[in-house]
Amino acid sequence: LGIVTLTTDFGLQDEYVGAMKGAVLARCPGAVLVDICHQIEPQDIRQAAFMLAAVVNQFPTGSVHVVVVDPGVGTGRAIVAVRGAGQTVVAPDNGVLTCWIAAVTPEKAVRVDNPHLHSPVVSPTFHGRDIIAPAAAHLAKGLPMAALGTAMPCRDLYRRADLGVGTTAGGDPEGIVVAVDRFGNLVTNVPGAMVDDPRMRIWVGDREVGRLKTTYADADPGQPLALIGSRGTLEIAVNQGSAAQLLAAGRGDSVVLRRTPR
Amino acid sequence: LGIVTLTTDFGLQDEYVGAMKGAVLARCPGAVLVDICHQIEPQDIRQAAFMLAAVVNQFPTGSVHVVVVDPGVGTGRAIVAVRGAGQTVVAPDNGVLTCWIAAVTPEKAVRVDNPHLHSPVVSPTFHGRDIIAPAAAHLAKGLPMAALGTAMPCRDLYRRADLGVGTTAGGDPEGIVVAVDRFGNLVTNVPGAMVDDPRMRIWVGDREVGRLKTTYADADPGQPLALIGSRGTLEIAVNQGSAAQLLAAGRGDSVVLRRTPR
Amino acid sequence: LGIVTLTTDFGLQDEYVGAMKGAVLARCPGAVLVDICHQIEPQDIRQAAFMLAAVVNQFPTGSVHVVVVDPGVGTGRAIVAVRGAGQTVVAPDNGVLTCWIAAVTPEKAVRVDNPHLHSPVVSPTFHGRDIIAPAAAHLAKGLPMAALGTAMPCRDLYRRADLGVGTTAGGDPEGIVVAVDRFGNLVTNVPGAMVDDPRMRIWVGDREVGRLKTTYADADPGQPLALIGSRGTLEIAVNQGSAAQLLAAGRGDSVVLRRTPR
Repeated sequence: LGIVTLTTDFGLQDEYVGAMKGAVLARCPGAVLVDICHQIEPQDIRQAAFMLAAVVNQFPTGSVHVVVVDPGVGTGRAIVAVRGAGQTVVAPDNGVLTCWIAAVTPEKAVRVDNPHLHSPVVSPTFHGRDIIAPAAAHLAKGLPMAALGTAMPCRDLYRRADLGVGTTAGGDPEGIVVAVDRFGNLVTNVPGAMVDDPRMRIWVGDREVGRLKTTYADADPGQPLALIGSRGTLEIAVNQGSAAQLLAAGRGDSVVLRRTPR
Repeated sequence: LGIVTLTTDFGLQDEYVGAMKGAVLARCPGAVLVDICHQIEPQDIRQAAFMLAAVVNQFPTGSVHVVVVDPGVGTGRAIVAVRGAGQTVVAPDNGVLTCWIAAVTPEKAVRVDNPHLHSPVVSPTFHGRDIIAPAAAHLAKGLPMAALGTAMPCRDLYRRADLGVGTTAGGDPEGIVVAVDRFGNLVTNVPGAMVDDPRMRIWVGDREVGRLKTTYADADPGQPLALIGSRGTLEIAVNQGSAAQLLAAGRGDSVVLRRTPR
Repeated sequence: LGIVTLTTDFGLQDEYVGAMKGAVLARCPGAVLVDICHQIEPQDIRQAAFMLAAVVNQFPTGSVHVVVVDPGVGTGRAIVAVRGAGQTVVAPDNGVLTCWIAAVTPEKAVRVDNPHLHSPVVSPTFHGRDIIAPAAAHLAKGLPMAALGTAMPCRDLYRRADLGVGTTAGGDPEGIVVAVDRFGNLVTNVPGAMVDDPRMRIWVGDREVGRLKTTYADADPGQPLALIGSRGTLEIAVNQGSAAQLLAAGRGDSVVLRRTPR
């Protein structure tokens, strides 16, 4: 199909995303380029990791997904291509793959270290354009993954330890807010299945939000509620309002599931 | 042709637009996706309605236009597909179609209620991805509109009453500012034809802007002027400056056409 | 190939970019549209000129590049199409081509003044949609450049005098910051080759940044450094930080290369 998606922390004020697209099209003129998001907070690997896992399965089998959130550009961290569930991701091996890997069980991985497939000149500060985009283009054109570089065991892929759901001192499941969306909804890392218990009450900091509901209109206007968001994870929202504002909460804040009153 | 345009209030900080594009491409891999705007103010149906009417006719016959500004997601409001003047729009039936419908006279409408063409799992908070994008993909692939769901009379489409030009107590035509663009131009809902009278003077609040001119350079630098903007409607601008700033005006503000001094 | 790139100062809050894309697709349905950047500061010809030169050569031969930063829209300035090094640029002749022309030596230029290829109705305030986008579409479809209008000598193309590197009173090479990127890096107009001298020390205002290094990690965290950025020009960065913030510097600020202590 030749679909290549792009998720970066480049923002849109510079030519960086456009330059990457040129690098793809120069090698695979028929590629279909799709922006996922370029407003990842600079160097926020966690945010990128959750977002990648949220979108990959929306795309048809055979798509290639590029992630460039790369605080270690120009240092020793590897760039990898990983295949799983019919999709391929090309990214720095710095943890951005953690959530997607947990969801799909990867089948195959290579280090993208074949210099013949990089740009003739590799900028030490822009591997996205000079190594990652060319690799994605070659994959979109149908080049076997093995040609990109050295095979590596999938178990060696770097995974961040802090991306799962933990437990409070009291033994209650505790997740975090991983994104605040444009509407002020608090998107968490808590899988929907964990909240599927009518006794469970959701707390954001000191504030109880109540039991799980289905959609925004299940709360009165201006009132907060918990629901399963479009990522399939727990989300805290306010009907016709902003949960981030009402609850004074943001990325990194704790969300706790309690079966008993606090 | 397979062109699908997207107009939403999702912003660009989240993966929502990318997820919708995946949902289109998964069903119509050859679709050509075009972003119109994703910075509609959250839930501002009026702004979306005017923008949709301003761009549809730029696209070739057979294009499909998706609008997702949907305060009622998860409630009873219908999602509709409407055909007119060779173009098809898929959107919540909440008023976002008002201006386009007024311009083209729609020929055919259906409720997008055939669940076999929705995503297998429909998120109660993201009908854009799970109902609207799949419908647009099927249309772009050539599926007849009737397959999407139940036919409805075009006269039943919901239209907002407050999107036309009104009249002041004194009998003068009165429009409103419907958008402030990046350059600070005040874009109004007043059709250009209404201003085509050399005696007509344009007022923004308490300030007279004068008679209609043709282009920015017809005013001295820093001075305001009225002209017909690129939407074909009355626009207030400042040569080499910002009308919004100079006139302290913004969306929703009144613009009055007077034949006699006030 | 039919690739058309877009660089404008339109921002993304309005429908202007989407309308231009419609105008291209209406005339060349197979065009592949690529956004370079729409966040050029309003009417900042200098920023656009440097950005254009930085990306054109990333794209395959035969691509068409549109630039719309056009303070003179509606006045007498010409719109031109220029071919060089296998690429074609369509833009107002107001200086935005200066850096690209300096890099490639243009081979052929025409004034885009054949009204039969414009939109049937040309808005006096939106030549991007009504003249430039149609011209790009015709080129992408394979129309010979000569059909767009009157041939002109390439030497008559307007070039801004202030885009090169100057000299301080003391005889040292002096460039300027032409962009501050999302990460706070200061991108300059100083060609990398000029800094390729181990005695050379780089100054931003009153602050010495030291000798040229290779990548961000060559400085301690929080410390500034000079390197050759992804455009191939001198860039001032801070490892894991923002040079713009640390050095309180921004666009237009002076960057001096000194062989001797100040």
